[in-house]
Amino acid sequence: MRKVGVDTNLGTIFLSETVGTAMLLLLGGGVVANVILKGNKGFGGGWLLINFGWGLAVFAGVTVSYASGAHLNPAVTFGLLAAGKITAAAGSNVFVTVIIYLLGQLLGAFIGAVLVWLAYKDHFDAEEDPGAKLGVFSTGPAIRSYAWNFITEVIGTFVLVFVVIGFGKAGDPDTNTPAGLAALGALPVALLVVAIGASLGGPTGYAINPARDIMPRIAHAILPIKGKGGSDWSYAWVPIAGPIVGGLLAGWLSLVLLP
Amino acid sequence: MRKVGVDTNLGTIFLSETVGTAMLLLLGGGVVANVILKGNKGFGGGWLLINFGWGLAVFAGVTVSYASGAHLNPAVTFGLLAAGKITAAAGSNVFVTVIIYLLGQLLGAFIGAVLVWLAYKDHFDAEEDPGAKLGVFSTGPAIRSYAWNFITEVIGTFVLVFVVIGFGKAGDPDTNTPAGLAALGALPVALLVVAIGASLGGPTGYAINPARDIMPRIAHAILPIKGKGGSDWSYAWVPIAGPIVGGLLAGWLSLVLLP
Amino acid sequence: MRKVGVDTNLGTIFLSETVGTAMLLLLGGGVVANVILKGNKGFGGGWLLINFGWGLAVFAGVTVSYASGAHLNPAVTFGLLAAGKITAAAGSNVFVTVIIYLLGQLLGAFIGAVLVWLAYKDHFDAEEDPGAKLGVFSTGPAIRSYAWNFITEVIGTFVLVFVVIGFGKAGDPDTNTPAGLAALGALPVALLVVAIGASLGGPTGYAINPARDIMPRIAHAILPIKGKGGSDWSYAWVPIAGPIVGGLLAGWLSLVLLP
Amino acid sequence: MRKVGVDTNLGTIFLSETVGTAMLLLLGGGVVANVILKGNKGFGGGWLLINFGWGLAVFAGVTVSYASGAHLNPAVTFGLLAAGKITAAAGSNVFVTVIIYLLGQLLGAFIGAVLVWLAYKDHFDAEEDPGAKLGVFSTGPAIRSYAWNFITEVIGTFVLVFVVIGFGKAGDPDTNTPAGLAALGALPVALLVVAIGASLGGPTGYAINPARDIMPRIAHAILPIKGKGGSDWSYAWVPIAGPIVGGLLAGWLSLVLLP
Repeated sequence: MRKVGVDTNLGTIFLSETVGTAMLLLLGGGVVANVILKGNKGFGGGWLLINFGWGLAVFAGVTVSYASGAHLNPAVTFGLLAAGKITAAAGSNVFVTVIIYLLGQLLGAFIGAVLVWLAYKDHFDAEEDPGAKLGVFSTGPAIRSYAWNFITEVIGTFVLVFVVIGFGKAGDPDTNTPAGLAALGALPVALLVVAIGASLGGPTGYAINPARDIMPRIAHAILPIKGKGGSDWSYAWVPIAGPIVGGLLAGWLSLVLLP
Repeated sequence: MRKVGVDTNLGTIFLSETVGTAMLLLLGGGVVANVILKGNKGFGGGWLLINFGWGLAVFAGVTVSYASGAHLNPAVTFGLLAAGKITAAAGSNVFVTVIIYLLGQLLGAFIGAVLVWLAYKDHFDAEEDPGAKLGVFSTGPAIRSYAWNFITEVIGTFVLVFVVIGFGKAGDPDTNTPAGLAALGALPVALLVVAIGASLGGPTGYAINPARDIMPRIAHAILPIKGKGGSDWSYAWVPIAGPIVGGLLAGWLSLVLLP
Repeated sequence: MRKVGVDTNLGTIFLSETVGTAMLLLLGGGVVANVILKGNKGFGGGWLLINFGWGLAVFAGVTVSYASGAHLNPAVTFGLLAAGKITAAAGSNVFVTVIIYLLGQLLGAFIGAVLVWLAYKDHFDAEEDPGAKLGVFSTGPAIRSYAWNFITEVIGTFVLVFVVIGFGKAGDPDTNTPAGLAALGALPVALLVVAIGASLGGPTGYAINPARDIMPRIAHAILPIKGKGGSDWSYAWVPIAGPIVGGLLAGWLSLVLLP
Repeated sequence: MRKVGVDTNLGTIFLSETVGTAMLLLLGGGVVANVILKGNKGFGGGWLLINFGWGLAVFAGVTVSYASGAHLNPAVTFGLLAAGKITAAAGSNVFVTVIIYLLGQLLGAFIGAVLVWLAYKDHFDAEEDPGAKLGVFSTGPAIRSYAWNFITEVIGTFVLVFVVIGFGKAGDPDTNTPAGLAALGALPVALLVVAIGASLGGPTGYAINPARDIMPRIAHAILPIKGKGGSDWSYAWVPIAGPIVGGLLAGWLSLVLLP
């Protein structure tokens, strides 16, 4: 995998995060559409199909976002910041660099959500349940209980960011060689996201990424989707706050727990 | 993975694309036959089984088509052409080289479709639904709506060709090392095809490859299949035109979006 | 992966093939027992579970059979022989070496089948259907039709041996580097076996390995399994002859089709 | 993957095994909670989902436990001890080193089980069946039969430890290069655990790890879980004794069977 070098500029980071996060949301939202919108060939395909769909969405998104290191997720950006692993872009500083990462992620997530709607247009029109339509865009809790939903998102995102930092540590070239799977591109993080979905996705649908949830929710509110209902704004803070807290905790604790 | 060198000749390309595309269609058509033709041990095995079957069909097809770089798909060939990544075969030019790639793909897809029929002969005979028989050979829409079906195929094929180009870029040796998963042979593209099936296959069954759809459709029309119905020629243009447009778009946009 | 060197002796080959094939049958027969014997936690788990179980059985079996190159299958041994890829063991000749490979495979398959019976003893005792008990040991056709069953086994085994030879060719160090996935140990062939099961396993249950079928059938006939029925000897020749023919065809055709 | 060096001290080993085993149990217990506690998005998701969940739990746990070589399982530690593969920590001896490995595993397993309860708190409260609640923490037999349950656990753990030792042997740098998948970090053992679950998990739910079973059982007994039942202490010895015997057998037999 190409590394983000000291000569990577803000424009490259913005473009790369936009492209990668759009790919992530197109494929991630797409698998949910396939499984929950009536009439699709994958309708009722089950949780493992959704887990693989999201995991491989990460695989594709990370692949095309090599130029910026493929954060694709504000929780990852904040976690790496907490762990002291963000390098300033060429001619900039860390604060501005982080802002550019976030802006690219937000724009990309919006674009990806729009593309899902286009790819599944007929099925959005044919579906009668407004809840299913929203479910393609944003996450919602199985049992509404903001405090526990928040904790579930914190734990899920902690695992994501902590193990991502672990991938790098496990293959630390200063310590031992070879890096093994840690150097194998987008596969490890894809498998990790399959794991989080399978193991921690039950209660909240594993947003584990603020951009992944809020921007499709905004798209849902804006797009002229036939027969849509509300965008469930009362829940919207959970998949923003939970992942940010989880990511920061993972970044800080990695300094202690990953020698 | 072996690279297509300047000394690769047209005959090698033709043979390699024929063999690889035949393998692709044998295993790809085979998993559909297993899942949708009555009496099979995999009958009703679900969408994820079909997704893995097609993804691993790509894995096997790409492996045995190393000598030509394993396009196996006119949309990939056109996309690479648009991205300026086709090298002329030894003693030839780019135009003729592209034609030879396409001819090999078309012949291979036909051979693969015939082999599926032979492998599942008893089950074709026992099946009563003509639609299921055609479904083993060619794709069809869940909701017939040519314009939106076309868009779905454009988006699906765009993802295929764009990420395939990304695999190469992510491991660009001129920029950074190591290439990681980009150099790992047939696995990345196999996982990508699992992803596209899971996430974008719901509305049209993801042809994302003109040869994969038209040649089995012709085989369906020609072969003496017991109790077969029509070959749905009115839909046949969608999985040809959509993938070609998607592939070309991916090739051109990769020049801008994949630095 | 360690290569079989000129100093590998017959004893090492016999031990390695025995251990590897026993592991293959223990895990391969085990997944079938889990899915089809009543009361198991994986009961009714579906075809994809069986496909992954067998594929990963190959993964484990190949891993522990590194010392002999992990054929684990007479059809692979015959196919490699046809392709001119068998090296005589130290102090021996090719004919005797092949015999030792086969004997190790046959013994290992028998041991593996006995271990499955021990691991699932309670469930064999509780199961009432004699057909399900035999199904854990040996394959049987969905539609009994010896000629077409034979052809299905020929095609399935052809794919196995042809692509295995392709793994080696794709990474031929004399031609191009790096070998990519071809050098990655047991994963590629495991994925290939998942593919064959998903795509070509519907009609006959994909023996694609004479030892895998005949030795468990013999174990079924010998072991004191409570309430067992007949061992279906009339079908037993199909999963022997089909795989041998498919393997030989793959070996010979690889000389022409895999440049 | 980083190797455990002669300068790795007892504190690093304890921390690393604790962190890794906590991750293992969080994700492993989590997937069971998702599938068997009512109301979850993955409810009724099937055995393959559980198998992938546990396999990828190993993937994540091994990744973050690189500093100690990621045993995460007393049966692995005992098996490696029997095979002569445990190196004493810096300034210590093998006996004390083994004790520290075990203590880290036990503490980590307890922490992981508590985290599962927190992540699925609402669903534990909503579930009515006490057996399902215990099932998230500890294993239980499909058919209660201590002797055969013990044998199943011995066989399953034997496969785990034997093949893990095989991963190292297959890539023995003194014999042949390259190591292939054996050097690829956490993926091979993750796939192996998917295999064991699919193929040998039917009768007992594959504890194959004493710490994985006893510490969550203790957590179940201690935690104030709403509506919980007994902790089935009469079965508790089986998933302790079986895995230890299986691990020791694998370690000793590897000296003979893996040349």
